[in-house]
Amino acid sequence: MSDRAAWIELAHGIEPADGAAARLLASVGPDRAVDLIRSGRSGLRHGEGIAARMSGVTAEQAEDRAHAAGTRIVTRVDRDWPTQLDALGAMVPMALWVMGAASLRLLALRSVAVVGARASSPYGEELARSWSADLAAEGWTIVSGAAFGVDAAAHRGALAAGGVTMALLAGGVDVPYPRAHAALLGAIADQGLVVSEVPLGEPVRRQRFLSRNRLIAALGRATLVVEAAERSGTAATAHQAAALLRPVLAVPGPVTAPTSVGCHRLIQEGTAMLATGLPDVMAALDLDAGSGRGADAHGPTGSGEVRRRDHLDATSRRVLDSMPARRWATAAELVRASGLAPADMLAAAARLAVDGWLVEGPNGWRRVREPAA
Amino acid sequence: MSDRAAWIELAHGIEPADGAAARLLASVGPDRAVDLIRSGRSGLRHGEGIAARMSGVTAEQAEDRAHAAGTRIVTRVDRDWPTQLDALGAMVPMALWVMGAASLRLLALRSVAVVGARASSPYGEELARSWSADLAAEGWTIVSGAAFGVDAAAHRGALAAGGVTMALLAGGVDVPYPRAHAALLGAIADQGLVVSEVPLGEPVRRQRFLSRNRLIAALGRATLVVEAAERSGTAATAHQAAALLRPVLAVPGPVTAPTSVGCHRLIQEGTAMLATGLPDVMAALDLDAGSGRGADAHGPTGSGEVRRRDHLDATSRRVLDSMPARRWATAAELVRASGLAPADMLAAAARLAVDGWLVEGPNGWRRVREPAA
Repeated sequence: MSDRAAWIELAHGIEPADGAAARLLASVGPDRAVDLIRSGRSGLRHGEGIAARMSGVTAEQAEDRAHAAGTRIVTRVDRDWPTQLDALGAMVPMALWVMGAASLRLLALRSVAVVGARASSPYGEELARSWSADLAAEGWTIVSGAAFGVDAAAHRGALAAGGVTMALLAGGVDVPYPRAHAALLGAIADQGLVVSEVPLGEPVRRQRFLSRNRLIAALGRATLVVEAAERSGTAATAHQAAALLRPVLAVPGPVTAPTSVGCHRLIQEGTAMLATGLPDVMAALDLDAGSGRGADAHGPTGSGEVRRRDHLDATSRRVLDSMPARRWATAAELVRASGLAPADMLAAAARLAVDGWLVEGPNGWRRVREPAA
Repeated sequence: MSDRAAWIELAHGIEPADGAAARLLASVGPDRAVDLIRSGRSGLRHGEGIAARMSGVTAEQAEDRAHAAGTRIVTRVDRDWPTQLDALGAMVPMALWVMGAASLRLLALRSVAVVGARASSPYGEELARSWSADLAAEGWTIVSGAAFGVDAAAHRGALAAGGVTMALLAGGVDVPYPRAHAALLGAIADQGLVVSEVPLGEPVRRQRFLSRNRLIAALGRATLVVEAAERSGTAATAHQAAALLRPVLAVPGPVTAPTSVGCHRLIQEGTAMLATGLPDVMAALDLDAGSGRGADAHGPTGSGEVRRRDHLDATSRRVLDSMPARRWATAAELVRASGLAPADMLAAAARLAVDGWLVEGPNGWRRVREPAA
């Protein structure tokens, strides 16, 4: 059995962030773990339940089902795996179900988590919407949880700006949650990605919200908390991001507003930096020109994947020089501006996207600022 | 000539925070400095101007004039000198003109500076008012600058709570500034103190506002910034307090409010801690029970002046035990409650106030929490 097939089958039986199962996987590998679990010799206390959930599910069937539902499965060993998640160590998901055409890995490379209270205020919603719109317009993927309040405002801001956004769900990607956001999730899948580590058809559960939050924290190169109540899932996401050494930012608000209590706490305890505007978020993302730290100060991406301009071939440079500075460009526009044959332009744009120079959206490409040396 | 007389005369000629004059004073002392200045041998470039301002002013005349105006002069060498100001080093004022009956030194011992924008918002004014009221009700002196906006709200909050407050003016204490606050300043002098380092009748000047701010920063055991515009005198006061190693707190607000920009900046740059409520201020004042740092972690006051309960004599302890926990007590009430003769009660209360157990207000005394060991 291939590792890919093993991860897919395991993902049907093992709950997200199951520490005991993670230790087994780390010690024997996915293929052998499937055997041990199916034969009742895994030694896991809850091994029978896992085996029961895996019974009658083959990787092939799961793939067929995923394709039939207009989704795909990306496992740890696949090319499109978002490497940021590897920061989760033993708690890395086994597989991700993905709805949407864009590359998960490439969108994740330039992503910001924008999270906050479900019971948000107009103040928080407007900030989430407008900051997400501006970040998305700069080519950043807005990662959030599709919940009411701040999450939805963040997704909507990115969509309205013609940018890309990624919704991480606690249930299956074909189980819109909350149900009132079915249309929003459809729009996100059209223009970005809807992602979950639990298989199709799986319902949300309390524990799955918590484990889903770790994916949001790990995917974002930085996490922006717009509003948060005192003890909340939002604060938990912020703490997880901080534990992964990702920059965390929180937006202050009136001290009289319960919706800002969690943000103020995160700032006071040193978990989050205070953010008053987009420049603070950009600074945290280490994109300040001349900061000397470069794009890889946080997270696994960086100079290994993002190469400097003078190493580009002539065709790629021509495409890059044809890109408008601050907006999306369609393929037709780039063919015209670069004077290249469409096939050459498309090939160069694909290379530039892989190398981190451009970000690929549903309707074209957008420039990424030049990484520091 | 006594040092006291020399300081008074010098204070008539030398502008606040005059560095060159401060160096002269430090090297030859006040008495000799008076001689050198009056005889034109001070070596100061602006020595003639200083001598001109000092001409025809004797300490005796100044004292007479102060008394006639219902004020008094407190110099560096006097018993009522607020020792917190010594943290200013060479920039310590030479003398202070004081309007109001309370002890300057004792009020300053338990003081919090509450400062903020003149162009304040209702949000900031309400916070300044209510926090100052609560701090004053706990026996803290609210120190501020009597300006429009946050300053006035802070003074008014303290007055409304029956507490004490201290206004530091940039001009003479008999020159109400701003003029619209003449009645407010009168109420402050009745229930607290109006203080300035420039002589009676002196007008405000731009430079005097800046030097006055350093007194507010130095007098407060902590400085609370309620609202501040981006570049402002308020931010300058906060920086001066931080430079004196006093805790500085700033209240956040909506990132969309220009009145909170300065507070957010102070927090971001690490000058101020974020404060969401009175507990944050109290924690910064090191009054948390069991903090182990005691009352003298900041500023010059502390165990030298505040002694522990078991060292108190029986009469003092009886007065202390008669004090209500959280409000002011009049002399009559304490005589009744302690069962002591009025003279004994008054003597004990005076000792307790000097030792930092009680704070003396215009209408009685208030308990101070037990200092840490």
